[in-house]
This record gives sequence, C-alpha cells and structure tokens, in this order.
Amino acid sequence: MADYKSDIEIAQEAEMLPIFEVAKRAGLDEDTLEPYGYTKAKVDIHSLKDKPLKGKLVLVTAINPTPAGEGKTTTSVGLADAMNKMGKQTLLCLREPSLGPVFGIKGGAAGGGHAQVVPMEDINLHFTGDFHAIGAANNLCAAMLDNHIKQGNALGIDPRRVVWKRCVDMNDRQLRNVVDGLGGVANGMPREDGFDITVASEVMAVFCLATDLKDLKERLSRMVIAYTFDQRPVTVADIHAEGAMTALLKDAIKPNLVQTLENNPAFVHGGPFANIAHGCNSVEATTTALKLADYVVTEAGFGADLGAEKFLDIKCRATGLVPSAVVLVATVRALKYNGGVPKDQLADENLEALEAGMPNLLQHVSNITDVYGLPVVVAINAFPTDTKAELDLVEAKCNELGVNVALSEVWAKGGEGGVALAEEVVRLCDEPSDFHFSYELDGSIEEKVEAIATRIYHADGVDFTPAARKQLKKLTDLGYDKLPICVAKTQYSFTDDPKKLGAPKGFRITVRNLRVSAGAGFIVALTGDIMTMPGLPKVPAAEKIDVTEDGKIVGLF
Amino acid sequence: MADYKSDIEIAQEAEMLPIFEVAKRAGLDEDTLEPYGYTKAKVDIHSLKDKPLKGKLVLVTAINPTPAGEGKTTTSVGLADAMNKMGKQTLLCLREPSLGPVFGIKGGAAGGGHAQVVPMEDINLHFTGDFHAIGAANNLCAAMLDNHIKQGNALGIDPRRVVWKRCVDMNDRQLRNVVDGLGGVANGMPREDGFDITVASEVMAVFCLATDLKDLKERLSRMVIAYTFDQRPVTVADIHAEGAMTALLKDAIKPNLVQTLENNPAFVHGGPFANIAHGCNSVEATTTALKLADYVVTEAGFGADLGAEKFLDIKCRATGLVPSAVVLVATVRALKYNGGVPKDQLADENLEALEAGMPNLLQHVSNITDVYGLPVVVAINAFPTDTKAELDLVEAKCNELGVNVALSEVWAKGGEGGVALAEEVVRLCDEPSDFHFSYELDGSIEEKVEAIATRIYHADGVDFTPAARKQLKKLTDLGYDKLPICVAKTQYSFTDDPKKLGAPKGFRITVRNLRVSAGAGFIVALTGDIMTMPGLPKVPAAEKIDVTEDGKIVGLF
Repeated sequence: MADYKSDIEIAQEAEMLPIFEVAKRAGLDEDTLEPYGYTKAKVDIHSLKDKPLKGKLVLVTAINPTPAGEGKTTTSVGLADAMNKMGKQTLLCLREPSLGPVFGIKGGAAGGGHAQVVPMEDINLHFTGDFHAIGAANNLCAAMLDNHIKQGNALGIDPRRVVWKRCVDMNDRQLRNVVDGLGGVANGMPREDGFDITVASEVMAVFCLATDLKDLKERLSRMVIAYTFDQRPVTVADIHAEGAMTALLKDAIKPNLVQTLENNPAFVHGGPFANIAHGCNSVEATTTALKLADYVVTEAGFGADLGAEKFLDIKCRATGLVPSAVVLVATVRALKYNGGVPKDQLADENLEALEAGMPNLLQHVSNITDVYGLPVVVAINAFPTDTKAELDLVEAKCNELGVNVALSEVWAKGGEGGVALAEEVVRLCDEPSDFHFSYELDGSIEEKVEAIATRIYHADGVDFTPAARKQLKKLTDLGYDKLPICVAKTQYSFTDDPKKLGAPKGFRITVRNLRVSAGAGFIVALTGDIMTMPGLPKVPAAEKIDVTEDGKIVGLF
Repeated sequence: MADYKSDIEIAQEAEMLPIFEVAKRAGLDEDTLEPYGYTKAKVDIHSLKDKPLKGKLVLVTAINPTPAGEGKTTTSVGLADAMNKMGKQTLLCLREPSLGPVFGIKGGAAGGGHAQVVPMEDINLHFTGDFHAIGAANNLCAAMLDNHIKQGNALGIDPRRVVWKRCVDMNDRQLRNVVDGLGGVANGMPREDGFDITVASEVMAVFCLATDLKDLKERLSRMVIAYTFDQRPVTVADIHAEGAMTALLKDAIKPNLVQTLENNPAFVHGGPFANIAHGCNSVEATTTALKLADYVVTEAGFGADLGAEKFLDIKCRATGLVPSAVVLVATVRALKYNGGVPKDQLADENLEALEAGMPNLLQHVSNITDVYGLPVVVAINAFPTDTKAELDLVEAKCNELGVNVALSEVWAKGGEGGVALAEEVVRLCDEPSDFHFSYELDGSIEEKVEAIATRIYHADGVDFTPAARKQLKKLTDLGYDKLPICVAKTQYSFTDDPKKLGAPKGFRITVRNLRVSAGAGFIVALTGDIMTMPGLPKVPAAEKIDVTEDGKIVGLF
C-alpha cells in the first residue's frame, strides 16, 4: 500500500482563496460578509431575507455506520467539487464538527483526503465560536433556572423534575451524572443533575431549525426546562431567559462560509445529534445556499434510517424544502462488515461477505424511493483496499435491481474523482419525483412511531414500556401529540439493537421513554440508552495534538 | 439631575472606524491583522516578535472598591483619549469582560459614558471567543484527568486530592460544590468537585502571563492539577494535555484590537481575577502595545492593594516592565462611603465624611510612592452629584500633602474631559523614578506574605492557621517557595475583613490556606473564603437583555 498523506497534511498544503473571492463564487456581495480572519466569514442573512430560493437540493446520506467508515462528508465535499467542475453552480452545506470527537477517537470532521473543507484545523477547533455560543446560551438558561429555585421558587419548580441539563463541548463522562447545589443554603438546591455534550442540547436543535432571530427566540421561549410540583411544564419564557439567550446566539446564527480544497464555497453551520435531535446543518445555511446556487449538496447524520428520515420528516416538513435527489453512500469495507467480516479483516477481498452485506444498502435505497418517492443514486466511496472484483460486484448487484450506482473516487482524486457521481446526480435532479413524508402529523404519537418503525426500519411493530406509556399520556394531555417524531435509536442497526447488522426481519422496536423538545418542535422517542455525553478513550487523540512555536497545528486527524 | 443616555445608547451611536484604519493609527500593518468582522481584529504577534519596546507604561489603579463605583476602566479609556488628543501617540490595554457579571448585576465592563471601548455589545458578549477557548482548554484538562483515573490511574492520582476544577464563563452558584462521576463504573470515579468561573481559572492567569506560544505551553505543562495517593504533585505534562490545550489557545493568545469612542486604538485581552490571580490584561497585549506606541495606558483589577501590588510584584517582575507613572482613581462618592456614608445617601454633600474617607486614598498613594518608588497622580473621576465644595476639598487635601491630583471628567466629556489628567501623566512620565518591588523572591513564603501585609496593607503582622502552616511546609518541600506571592484577600478593605473601610491600623492578616499556581508562577495565599464562582441576583440582568429582529442588542448596561 502506498504512503498516504494525512488529512491535515493535505489540508495545510491547500492554496486557499481569500474568503471574499470565495464569496464572489457563491454570488455573495462583499457587504454581506463578516470576515473571521481571511479564510472564514459569517454571512449576514438579514440582507438576503427577501431573495427567493432557486436551487435544487441534493441530500447525501448513507448505510448504517460501521467502524469501517463510510465517508459521507468526504463524498458530499467531492460531489460538490465535481458538480462545480462540470460547470454546475453548486454550494455545499455541512455540519460543524464538535470538539468532543476531535479530542476523543474520531479526529476531525471536515471530509477526508482530497475532498475536504478548509481551513481544516480552524473548522475543527472553535471555528467561529458557534458551539461555544450555544453552550453559553444553554448554560445561562440552567443558571437562571437554578437561581429561580434558590431565590424563592415562585414558579414552584420541582428540583426532581428539572429536565434541562448544562452542557460542554467536550467528551467528559465524569459529568454524566452529578449531584450539584451542595454546600448549604447559599450554594443552591441539592439535586440530581448531569451534563450533555453541546451538540446534544435542544438549543443546538433549535439553532439548526430556526429561520431567523424572531423564530429563534420564539423556539427558545417554548422549550420545556422543568416541571412544577404539580407537574405543569415550565418553559424558558417563564424564567425570562429567551432574550439573553438570543442575544448570545445573534452572531452564531449567521452561516459560516469556507471553501473546499478546490476553492468552491461551502457553508459549515450547526451540528445537532442525529438520535435525540434531527442531525443536519442549520436551516439558515441550507436556505441561504438555495438562494444563491443552482444546486445545493447537503448531508444528514448517521445512516439513512436516522439521518435521512429526520431530514425528510422533520427538517423538510418544517421548512417546505424537498430534495431533488438523494445520494446514498456506502463502502465495500462497510458492506463487508455488514456481511459479517470482523474489523481487522476488512482489507481482504471477500465477495461472499460483500454480497451478504448488500441488503443493508438496498433497504435504505428502497426506503428513499418507495416510502419518500425520491430518486436515489448509490455512491460507492472507493478505498485503496477495494478490489476490482468487489467494486464490480456492487455495481452488478445494483444494476440487477435497477438501482443507480456510481463509483466515487473523491478521497483520492478530489472533484475529478466524483464526476461520474455528479453526472448521475444532475440527471436525477431533472427527473420528476413524488415526495411524501413517511407519516402525517395528525396521527397519535403511537401511530407515528409505528409508521417510522414499520416503514423505515421494517420492524413488525412497536412496544412501549409502562414508563413510555405514562409519558405518552402526559405529552398528549399537554397537547404535544401533533408534533413530528424524532426517534433516538442506535445508529448501527435498523433495529434498536446495535449488534443486528444487515437488514434484519422479525423484530420489534421498544420505546423506553418519550420527551418533548418543544422548541425544536418534536417528540423524542427513546429506544434505549442514548449516550448524550461521550467519554474519552484510553489514549485520547488530544495527547497527540500539538502546536508549533509559530502556531501550526499538528497531530489532528 | 439631567437625563443621561445609557452606556449602550452612547456606544451604539458611535461612529466606528473600520478596524484597518484603527490599526493604521496604532502603527500596525494590515497584514498583521486577523479581522473579526469590521470593528474587531486579532493581531499576529509573531510578526512583531523582534520589534523593541519603545513606549512608556502608565498604570491605572484605584482606592478600594465600593458599591459607589470608582470608574477605573472609564478613567483609563478617557485618559488614553486625552493623551491622543494632546498628540501623544497612546495605546490602551484593558481586560476582557466576563459573561458572568454581564448577566448578573454589574452589566458590561467596557468603560462608561463618553469613555468607552466599542463595539461595546461584542466586547461584552463572546467578543473574539478568548474566554470560551480558555474554558475549553481548562475543561479538556479536567476531562483528560478524570479519564486517566477511570482508565486505570497509572499515575496513582488520589481522587480526593484533585485540585483542578472545571469552569464556565457564567455566574452559576449551583456548580460551586458538586459530586460527579456518579452512575457506576462506566461513568467515572465519584468524587467531590466544583466549578469556577472561567476568569478564576489558572489557565486564565497563565494565558495573561505567557510571552509566546512556547512559554504558554511550558506554563500549562507545569500546572499542578492533583496529588497522588503518596502526595506527589501531578502536572498537566503528566497527562499529556499541554499540546492540545495550547492548540485550543493558539488564536486566543493574539491580542484583540478595538477602538475607543474617539477612534483611538485599544487592546482588550485577557482578564484574570485580582484575588486568586494577578488581575491584569495579557502580557502579550501590554508588550505589543509598548512596541507600537509612545505611551501605553493599562489598568489593574480591584484596588491598588490587590491590583497594583500584583501588577508590580508579579507581572512587572515576570516581564521586566516598569510603569513610568501610576494613576490612582477615586470618586467623591467612594471616599464618602469610606468615610461612613450609607450607599443611599452618597448623592448628598458631606464634607466631613469625605475628609474621613481620604486616608484610604492617601495610604494607596504613599504605598505607590514610598514602597514602589513610582510617581503617582490621583484622578478624581467626576460624578454628576459631586459638589464644587467636595471637589475643592479633595484637591486641597491632596495639595496640602504634596499629592498630585487632577479632576477627570471623561465620563461626561470623553477625552476632552481628561486633558488635565493627561498633562499631569505626561509630566510624571518624564520624571525620574526608582522602582523596586515590595519584597524580594529569595525570602521564605512567610517572609514574603509578611512583607506585603505590613508594607502594603499596613497590618501588624500575619497569622497562619494550622492548615496554612501544613501547606507552607509542603509547598516549601516541593520547591515552590521562591515564587512570588498572590494574596487572595477581600478587595473592599486593606484588611482581610471587608467591613473595615478607610485605612485601618492595629490589625493582623490571617492566612487560611496556601496553594501553588505553578504555571502562572505564584503562590496563592488565601486570607478567607474567596468566591471563585459568583451567583446570580434575585432578578438577573439577563432578564432585561434582548435582541431586536434585525440583531441589535438592547438592555445591556
């Protein structure tokens, strides 16, 4: 195997254009930009308020994630570069990386190889400060809530029923479960509490769904942060925190403009979890991009069962956006993993396992086409270890079933390696489609969860635990039952068991609890223990990260 | 009394120059700037590395703080404007405000009236993200420390002897005392813990003393974060966190350039507490300013007994800087408060109380002249309620004792109102001075604390509690006894009792505990319970802060 450059080495060799030049390519006037250094800028969306949407939206999603890596972001970046190379004016919209994984195992999250957004180090570290602003808004709310309790508790908040957690943008398991407010009367009210990672906060979800500052403030106001002793919901508006929280977010809400390695414009903005939240970049970024470009390529988190489902049933429903085409990313390695090959043997050719893993891919494809009525193309994200026989097999299997497929070599070749995929995407965008949601809002919470489970996961049905039934009644009584559903489920399987790979049949989904994200505007259905505060591994990636005396970051992957 | 505009109203009416124009006034080339929007920028200090220092340093300090307010920052801003008006090329260096007080009681901290730095809202909210970066670096260290314990604890860290706290830039008393790591083996190690506000962290102190990235990393490496079961110190270097922490701080460490209401350049950078830390803006900002300007006006936290003492004995010692003149700010109201007038009667003329309060001022003056050998001028920061008789009395009393004094009307008039003070400052800068520290480093910890207590506070002596004696021995055994001392004492009094105003005599200082800030490079001597995590008041200022639909901040004072 050849010696490959690391992502950061490739990124640091990039010849970046000044951000004002990139903005010009995106059709943005100089006076809409707020520069952050010379290669990042925020875009003043207020000045674009009345501009109509003109672009076609392309959603990039994937098979269920595996330890092998699928390369959804890499494919998105390369696809946008390829479309621009073809002369199609294309803007890219990605999620912002969290500091948590950067210092944990995963490393950076700005694409890979020759398909990256840059400046890679800045995007991975602080960037324009959005996540810190979201954390501060979240934690201001928490401080005001506990201060309300301490200063007489006029609202009658039950300290055992506070549902609002503080957050940090850090993998820090020590903060998962805490008791705070200790040390006597002057130091708060002792209660059980815990921290989430910032990307798991409802503020992040709200931030990514808000259409402007007014909508942002209204959504923040509605968030349920606690219940009273007589079990009435307490909202942000009740403690008068929404104005200051919006003030903390007023700059963060402006989309961040950067560029790809090929100097094409990209928005990188917002990044909620795709289990307890909807998992896609901000509505502000997507709609701004659609005002500027003919094509907009964007991605959704995790696999299509979580990310695409929520993109379509939550984000598209909230905004009226409809994708013109869907790209479903898979790798030969990940398909072999789905076919039963252990992680350390994925480099070996194994046609049998590859074929055995195909049903996972094909079920995601049929969901997109049959349930949502959208045209889809499978992108096989080429890895150096893939053999020709393996690549041919995937193509043959797809062709056999009439599934569009294209090889993507953007990791190795940049936009050049994505032309086949780009041509297919452009073709699909011109095809008629018949988009519909996987469920309508007027059903009960149970019916909506059932629809997602049976139609998207292909489960036989849904079981609600007694605790979930109790919550179901409560949320229905409170009038939250007409919201869409956000299923918090393992990303590794169509089922709620992370070990069941492929396309399992004959299983049921168990909903263990339900809660409302009233600001984001959805009911979260929890199907198991969802980790909202990751931990660090035995040797954190942070131990290798360093900075030279003249300020160059090293060791960031 | 006339109807006055609020600080934010005055600030929002300011006609700001583009930051590149401001930079030109500061003598900075365009290519040394990293713009953050159009009115803020970071300065690339690396490119100025070899430039010699040329300016004269003017330190602004004050009498002991009172609820009446003294206006140290306001005076600093107005003085710099006045000096520029006189044709003296002057740069201003201030501390960055914390979000905590902004949402608590105090409101913004960027000067007041017609002597402010702008954009006031940005400076008070997030600014260029420095404090978030400092918080992230601090909390990464904490996560890596607890992860080390959880992943086998090879260093043998005693969970009861972790001295490193997490931090947030928020007034949040609920986090003062917590138990974290609850929930079983997978979720860390249960231990007593607590959070500080970010400005109280040692990372902040280190950040403000570091001379470059290399020095920053070395200082971070040395910080003591815990002790082992056999009581050996564990440092940041032991858990390999210094590289990633430095990476998180690599942009933050660059000084922030903004402007005054009169378009004069100002650095606003770093802001440690002045009790458990040294209380002044970054060394990077001060030295960069001294490379660029003929005069540099800077401030120190709290009163001169804490702020100026640490500026001179810690920051000046660490850097070799020496102020050419010191400005000591007082108000008629604050002097009356020191003379026994209750807070609600400070608007009434009271010559007797004013005279009774003067010893506080005069003792600070004699400390600066007699102990440190520096020329000083008293700046009487005029308030609308001051009477002519009162102002005349202060002037007469100062003249009687040969103390330089000047009236400062910068709050009402901007630089124009500071010309008398500026002329005096320029005159003093040309006088010979004979600077010496209040103690030398080669004494024992006890001797050094004793020197500060007797020479600066005018105490009869120092008592060490048994706990402090034990720590004293431990820190001496560990070889930390040759560091300077940072006394954490109430800011309201020369004594360690906040209620003893004026210039008390016949008292002793009690040191209750000692700890080492090995990265910052000082021993902290704690003379009482020092609040390192403030709380919110009954009605937090945050409840009034809001943002209009087009993004304008309102309700920030």
